[in-house]
Amino acid sequence: MIEHGLRSIEPLISRRHAAGDSLFLVLDHNTRLLCLPKLLEAIPWLLEVPVLEVPAGEQAKRLDTAQLLWNGLASADRHSLILNLGGGTVSDLGGFVAASLLRGIDYINIPTTLLAMVDASIGGKVAVNLDNLKNRIGFFHNPLAVCLDPVFLATLPELQYKAGLAEALKTFLLDPENQELGDKWLESFNKLTIDELILRSATYKQKLVEQDPYDRGERQQLNLGHTFGHAIESLALSKGEEMPHGIAVAMGILPAMRLSQKFFGLSESVADHYRLWLTQQEISLPHYSDEERRRLLEYIHSDKKNCHNQVRCTLLAGIGKAQISVPVEDEQIIAALG
Amino acid sequence: MIEHGLRSIEPLISRRHAAGDSLFLVLDHNTRLLCLPKLLEAIPWLLEVPVLEVPAGEQAKRLDTAQLLWNGLASADRHSLILNLGGGTVSDLGGFVAASLLRGIDYINIPTTLLAMVDASIGGKVAVNLDNLKNRIGFFHNPLAVCLDPVFLATLPELQYKAGLAEALKTFLLDPENQELGDKWLESFNKLTIDELILRSATYKQKLVEQDPYDRGERQQLNLGHTFGHAIESLALSKGEEMPHGIAVAMGILPAMRLSQKFFGLSESVADHYRLWLTQQEISLPHYSDEERRRLLEYIHSDKKNCHNQVRCTLLAGIGKAQISVPVEDEQIIAALG
Repeated sequence: MIEHGLRSIEPLISRRHAAGDSLFLVLDHNTRLLCLPKLLEAIPWLLEVPVLEVPAGEQAKRLDTAQLLWNGLASADRHSLILNLGGGTVSDLGGFVAASLLRGIDYINIPTTLLAMVDASIGGKVAVNLDNLKNRIGFFHNPLAVCLDPVFLATLPELQYKAGLAEALKTFLLDPENQELGDKWLESFNKLTIDELILRSATYKQKLVEQDPYDRGERQQLNLGHTFGHAIESLALSKGEEMPHGIAVAMGILPAMRLSQKFFGLSESVADHYRLWLTQQEISLPHYSDEERRRLLEYIHSDKKNCHNQVRCTLLAGIGKAQISVPVEDEQIIAALG
Repeated sequence: MIEHGLRSIEPLISRRHAAGDSLFLVLDHNTRLLCLPKLLEAIPWLLEVPVLEVPAGEQAKRLDTAQLLWNGLASADRHSLILNLGGGTVSDLGGFVAASLLRGIDYINIPTTLLAMVDASIGGKVAVNLDNLKNRIGFFHNPLAVCLDPVFLATLPELQYKAGLAEALKTFLLDPENQELGDKWLESFNKLTIDELILRSATYKQKLVEQDPYDRGERQQLNLGHTFGHAIESLALSKGEEMPHGIAVAMGILPAMRLSQKFFGLSESVADHYRLWLTQQEISLPHYSDEERRRLLEYIHSDKKNCHNQVRCTLLAGIGKAQISVPVEDEQIIAALG
C-alpha cells in the first residue's frame, strides 16, 4: 500500500495504537536530527513511541546491528508495529528484524532518501550483509505500507539525490508506459516534477512486485544495470572510494546498454541520450583498466543472481521493453565494460 | 512432502546434484557419529557432500551458531540444497539459515529423534533463541521434503524417546479420526507400532500446516499443552534441571485437561487415562509450590502466543475436538496448576 504525505498514515497507525498494539520507531542519527521533527510535526503523538537508533550508513547493515534492534524490541509481541524512518539501510534493518521477530511482525516504511522512495522502501526485500557479501542474509517481507513524502528531500546531500534520480531513471526506462516516447524519452523524463517521478517509479515497482513477489520473473526487470552496478560498487569499496548504490547502478546501465545494442538492437540514440543524462548529472563516464575489468568480471561472477555460474543480465530491447535473465559470456562482459 | 525411508529421497537429491546444485549436510556431533553412517549406507555418494557441524543441544540454537553456518555456506547459491540430519535443534538451525540465506534456499529434514519425526521437522517453523527467549527470531520456511526413517531411533536415549512419544500422544488426542475411540483411546494409542505412530502424527500435523501455514487458526491446535509446557520448561531451565521439551509438554497437558474439564466438560475419564499414561511412562505428576505457581504464571504471560497480555490456550472438548485460542484468566491458570 503506497500512501502520499506523512499525514496519510496517521489513521492506520492510530488505529493500531488504539487497539493496544505497541509501536517502535527505527531511525539513524541523521534521520533523528533531520527527519524525526518533520514526522512529529505531522503526527505529534508519535513523540511517546520508543525510538531505536541504528548507526548511519551501509556498514551498519550487519547482524550485530540487527541484534541490537532485537534486544531493543524485547517488549514487542506479534501485534507490534515498527515504523522505519530513513533510507535503505534503515528500512532494510528495520524490515529484517520485523521479518524475523516472532516469525514476522508488521512494519511501515517512511523513506527519507530519494533512492528509498523510488526503490528500496518498496517490495519487501530486506537483508543484512555478511562480511563483504551484500544482502547475503535476508527475506521477502512486505511492509504494511510505504509512506512517500518529498518533504525529507530538502535535507539530502546532492550525491544521494543523484543516486535516487538514477534509480528513478532506471525504472522510467523499464516502464512500458514510456514505450512510445522514442527519442523524446529523456526530454519527458527531465520534465517530470520530483513528486511525479517518485509516484511513477514507486507505482511501477509496486506493480512488478505484486506480479512477482519472489523475484522469479518479471520483477527481475528491476535488475537493469545491477549486475554491473554491484560489481562497480564492490570495486570502489575495495579501493575505499565513495560510491552510492544508485550511482553505481547508473554507471552499470552503460555496459547493459552496450549489450542491449548488441543482443537486441537497442537504438544508438537511446544509449546516446543516456550518456547525455549522465553528463548532465555530472556523473563521470568510467574508463576501466584491463586489471579493473578483470576484477569487475570476478565480482560479477560472485553475484547472487547467477545460476550455476552463468552470468545473467537484464537488458533493454527498447524503452519500456525489458529482457530478463539474458545469459552473457565472459568475453561479452569484458567488451561491454568499454 | 513426507517421504518414508532414507532411500526414498535419493531420486530427489540425485536430480538436484546432477543439475549442478550444491548440497550441504548440517548435523551435530551426535548425529555425525550415530546417524551419518546410516545415511551413507542408504545413499553412499553423500560422502562427498560438505558437512557443517553444529554443537549438540538446545543451547546451540543461537545467532552465533547460525553465523557459523552462514559462513560455512559461503559457496552456496540460490540453487543450493541443505540436508538437515538431526533432531529439532539441527532442523531449526539448518532451516533458519536456509530461510534467510539469499532470501531463502531449499532444505530437506532428515529427523533423527522421535520428537523431530512426529513434530519438529514438519511445518517450516524455524527459529533460534535470543538469550532466554525461545524461538524469538525465526520464520516460516517449509522444507522441500521430510524424510522419516525409524532406523535412527535405536540410538535415542530413553528420556528423548519418551519426549517424542508425548508429542505423538498430543497429536493423537487432537486428531478427529480418533473421536470415536471414547474410553478406548489409550488402549488404541498403546497398540500402535512406532512406524504407525510416526506416520499418523506427521500426516496429521502436515494436514494442519497445509490448512493454515502461518499458524493463525487451526494449526494452533498443536499448541495443546504448550502454554503450560513452555513455562514448565523455563522454570526447570532456571533451576538447571533437565527437562526435554516433549516431557514439559506432557506435563503441560495436565493443567490444560483440567481447564478443558472446566470450560468444555471434557470427561474425567480422558484426564484419568492421560494420568495413567504418564504413570506408565514414569513421567512424574508434578506438584508446584505457591512460589512455583507464581513463577509459572509469569512465564506464561511472557509467551509469544499471547495477544495484548491475554493468555490464550488450546483446550480439548473431547478426543479429536480441539478448541483453540481460549482466553484464560490468571486465577484459572493458578487453579489448573493443581
